Amino acid sequence: MNEFDYIRKIKQPTYRQSSLIKGVGDDAAVIRGGSRHIVTAVDTFVENVHFTAKTMPPFYIGYRLLAANISDIAAMGAIPKFFLVSIIIPDDMKQDELLEIHKGMDTLAKQYNMDLIGGDTVSGEILSLSITIIGYVHDNEVRYRSDAAPNDIVFVTGTLGDAALGLHLLQYDKTIKHRSYFVRKHQQPTPRVEFARKARKISRMALNDVSDGIANELQEISDASNVDIIIDDHAIPISCELKDVQLAKQNEWKYYGGEDFELVGTIPEHDFDTLQQIGKELDIQVTKIGNVLIKQAEKTQVFVREENTIRRLENKGYTHLSGSIEDEI
Amino acid sequence: MNEFDYIRKIKQPTYRQSSLIKGVGDDAAVIRGGSRHIVTAVDTFVENVHFTAKTMPPFYIGYRLLAANISDIAAMGAIPKFFLVSIIIPDDMKQDELLEIHKGMDTLAKQYNMDLIGGDTVSGEILSLSITIIGYVHDNEVRYRSDAAPNDIVFVTGTLGDAALGLHLLQYDKTIKHRSYFVRKHQQPTPRVEFARKARKISRMALNDVSDGIANELQEISDASNVDIIIDDHAIPISCELKDVQLAKQNEWKYYGGEDFELVGTIPEHDFDTLQQIGKELDIQVTKIGNVLIKQAEKTQVFVREENTIRRLENKGYTHLSGSIEDEI
Repeated sequence: MNEFDYIRKIKQPTYRQSSLIKGVGDDAAVIRGGSRHIVTAVDTFVENVHFTAKTMPPFYIGYRLLAANISDIAAMGAIPKFFLVSIIIPDDMKQDELLEIHKGMDTLAKQYNMDLIGGDTVSGEILSLSITIIGYVHDNEVRYRSDAAPNDIVFVTGTLGDAALGLHLLQYDKTIKHRSYFVRKHQQPTPRVEFARKARKISRMALNDVSDGIANELQEISDASNVDIIIDDHAIPISCELKDVQLAKQNEWKYYGGEDFELVGTIPEHDFDTLQQIGKELDIQVTKIGNVLIKQAEKTQVFVREENTIRRLENKGYTHLSGSIEDEI
Repeated sequence: MNEFDYIRKIKQPTYRQSSLIKGVGDDAAVIRGGSRHIVTAVDTFVENVHFTAKTMPPFYIGYRLLAANISDIAAMGAIPKFFLVSIIIPDDMKQDELLEIHKGMDTLAKQYNMDLIGGDTVSGEILSLSITIIGYVHDNEVRYRSDAAPNDIVFVTGTLGDAALGLHLLQYDKTIKHRSYFVRKHQQPTPRVEFARKARKISRMALNDVSDGIANELQEISDASNVDIIIDDHAIPISCELKDVQLAKQNEWKYYGGEDFELVGTIPEHDFDTLQQIGKELDIQVTKIGNVLIKQAEKTQVFVREENTIRRLENKGYTHLSGSIEDEI
């Protein structure tokens, strides 16, 4: 069964709790709190689907999964605070490896001043981890993907496709200039919490983290905001090393590679200078890659301009190691 | 690696967030909210570890897992409100089965007025589900397992071992009188939310849900409260049908069976009448099974009185279908 269908089928048409502000359909759910809202999301990481022993040493399994969760919280404009971990542990797993996984999580948790507050451990055949993350955000600072409006600028932080290149280098034991940088982008990505927090005074911003490739993230923004989006192929920021890769792979990675955990979003044009200034302060590249358009057809569309042609950007979802397609609920 | 050790090793010595009231070490974590606290826990359910296709049709996989989560919230004295679901879906899983799993969850969610607010779907080899539950409770109504005090009465709701008998009947295709009752106790347990809520005016109560067998639950209460506990073997409430089972199995199931999702706890003696009255109103049996004692040795102990002997009740953890031992973080 296609998981996209499943998610569509199980989504509640209405919610029963009046304190729920946002349920299924963004990077995280938002629950009304007292002085601040609670933001929560889940991410699951399965051996041989999301990682292999070859590409992800135990320390990075923990680090990378928690980073993905923190990235969801960043994409909501929130501050990560707590997490719960559920681990399915194969019988032949060594104690040292388990502790390394935890050390990877704890390293990042310390950095963000987060607490591990619960979870469970289960024996099973395949190593699988699921993290639930909880953060806080004030009401006027939440970033929904539904906040894009026509004439907005579409921006992205950092460079895209680096994590995919890093995985490729690990899988095929290849060495290139700055190999360790790309490998680190795959194993030890940096969620953009600080960037999103510094930008919290900007009055309106649609925001997603690039977990599944920008083709998918932009489609989510255009769907949620009921707008079209056009981006310039040549404007998409990629590393020099990625430019040396054959064009088909380069495009695959920059549009569909995912796992870069950069931020992609839209803001009013007059706020773009402020955003770039924030990027400068944090040494994070902020690039304009396109614009938001009024919806032209019945369904929302994402277009890409290449030289003198404009084509629709296919949204094929994010394909993992196993070739499976998946999604957030 | 023994998961008990793992949990001990990864538990943070201190917590970084001042809003955290209770982290690892109870049925759920408690976070300070505005007018009420947030209570959250995770439960994971893996095919061939916690259930098999033979003993758990898809509808009940969803129902049973969410019931276990709700039971954790009940054991904190809280009201369940939201849940997130992470599912690892095998490629050969049929769409109908997935929808049945969801229907099982949704049936219970409707009953408790809960909302499914997020999660993720992942392809993998073994069907696994993990639910994170979020509930609310007012500060003076939270039930910690650390609240037992010497001279308290130890009580339990319902009868114990019924779910284990139900599983046995399913595994060996056996038929006995009231078979459907026992099968239902295994597949479709009723969390005791209403009972715990009605008892919220009782000033002090240590509380656990019987997910892993009372031997384990009582040890957790005695550890957290730094007291000893003594129970009477003959006082433990069991169904008539369980009395017909050979003694070794009977004892195994009533002490270690788990998955009954009844409540076990301790309260001051003068509050026991009130608790029994609440039980009568809800048609839930409430039985005194023992007393809380001052700790006698360096380590806390749980004793059981049988005829004229007193022995320590061994705490061997909860053994699943796969024979693995697991625990909550």
